[in-house]
Amino acid sequence: MRTLIFILFILGFQVVLAQEKTGEFVDLTYSFSNESVYWVTAREFELEEVAKGETDLGFYYSANNFSTAEHGGTHIDAPIHFAEGAQTVDQIPLENLIGDAVKVNVSDSTLKNPDYLISLKDLQNWEKEHGPIPNGGIVLFQTGFGNYYPNAKKYLGTDKRGPEAVKELHFPGLSAEAAEWLIANRKIKAVGIDTASIDFGQSQDFATHVALMAKNVPAFENVANLDQLPERGFTIIALPMKIKGGSGGPLRIIAIK
Amino acid sequence: MRTLIFILFILGFQVVLAQEKTGEFVDLTYSFSNESVYWVTAREFELEEVAKGETDLGFYYSANNFSTAEHGGTHIDAPIHFAEGAQTVDQIPLENLIGDAVKVNVSDSTLKNPDYLISLKDLQNWEKEHGPIPNGGIVLFQTGFGNYYPNAKKYLGTDKRGPEAVKELHFPGLSAEAAEWLIANRKIKAVGIDTASIDFGQSQDFATHVALMAKNVPAFENVANLDQLPERGFTIIALPMKIKGGSGGPLRIIAIK
Repeated sequence: MRTLIFILFILGFQVVLAQEKTGEFVDLTYSFSNESVYWVTAREFELEEVAKGETDLGFYYSANNFSTAEHGGTHIDAPIHFAEGAQTVDQIPLENLIGDAVKVNVSDSTLKNPDYLISLKDLQNWEKEHGPIPNGGIVLFQTGFGNYYPNAKKYLGTDKRGPEAVKELHFPGLSAEAAEWLIANRKIKAVGIDTASIDFGQSQDFATHVALMAKNVPAFENVANLDQLPERGFTIIALPMKIKGGSGGPLRIIAIK
Repeated sequence: MRTLIFILFILGFQVVLAQEKTGEFVDLTYSFSNESVYWVTAREFELEEVAKGETDLGFYYSANNFSTAEHGGTHIDAPIHFAEGAQTVDQIPLENLIGDAVKVNVSDSTLKNPDYLISLKDLQNWEKEHGPIPNGGIVLFQTGFGNYYPNAKKYLGTDKRGPEAVKELHFPGLSAEAAEWLIANRKIKAVGIDTASIDFGQSQDFATHVALMAKNVPAFENVANLDQLPERGFTIIALPMKIKGGSGGPLRIIAIK
């Protein structure tokens, strides 16, 4: 009996591996620099050089300090970002950050309308073509806006900064209705998008953030290189900086395809 | 022929999976807070609350800024930290940060001598008992000092800070000889340790850093929970914050056992 269980276990992994095919890594992370895109009201990334060059002791030494908002560049929104009492970034279980993923490409719709909201219909159309979104999966949305990064004017809709710039934000996002459907019907672990926010730029109530985070579903934002992924059959590993009590933070996110 | 290659590929993974057994994640990362241990001369982690509570718009919102040295808490030393022209943290190939790993436990020796240097003999003894360190593997060193984290007095040997405290640092490290042997004979991809530095506290010349980094071998420092790992048969996934040109940075490191 134990032998049988072991063989079934191995066969299960064979199926997974047969889907994954190559084992190739894809880095879905933008590097942090003074070009990184931040929310118009957020503190931008700043690197301060502490040492660079030969020391008196005979060895080369390079070191820096940096400061940043938690939410900028490729980062994670922890559930507490928009839901009181929900998980902080250090409390998100690793199981929710690693696993089977799919990509939903809505570039055709968003390029015609920068305020496009990804709808339940988009998800249903995707499933018709590619089969069901796996239960407990991670869903990434490719809007095509990743092609504009780090050009703030094109990526965010504005290169102005400060509270007055908020109303000038124009980029697509996930509708609250679609988010709620994914949570209720596909038990998704996390979502990701190639824009600055899982809510669209013109959102006033951040209803999609609220819907996701009240259910402890984190969001990956400013995700890079989604054009290098297939529609399904890949694994996401998303490991955020472990900030105690943090509402989010820098994220290193990769795919294995 | 292609079928044969595919079958060999699957069989190779079967061996790996049979070793890994459970698929259980172990988080080897300390969370960042004002308790995080930093080098005595480095800027410590600081979190600044930006928002926390209900907004006028009817939703809850929490967000923070933070500042830190690249080298503190659980972090990576990129090769450029001690080797001019070597890889910056954003340039380290993902292949060097993910893979088969072993743990060398030298706690018995270090607890008798906080200035203990892990020797070539320690590696040879380990291989006699556990078999060869895998070629292209990642090697983690358990000194037992992780049990003291974040008590700086016990973990670093001093709770003083500033340049004068450097000479009071007492904790074990990896000898340059052992590092060179691992690079030349086992082609290791990376090393990790449960102390603040891969060189021991009393090092003046940081010879182990120099030996590793001149060959583009990064080091993981202040690694947590090594006592939860077996001696071999686990996979490391070590994903650092991707700082453009960075000499290192916050690291999220996990094991799958």
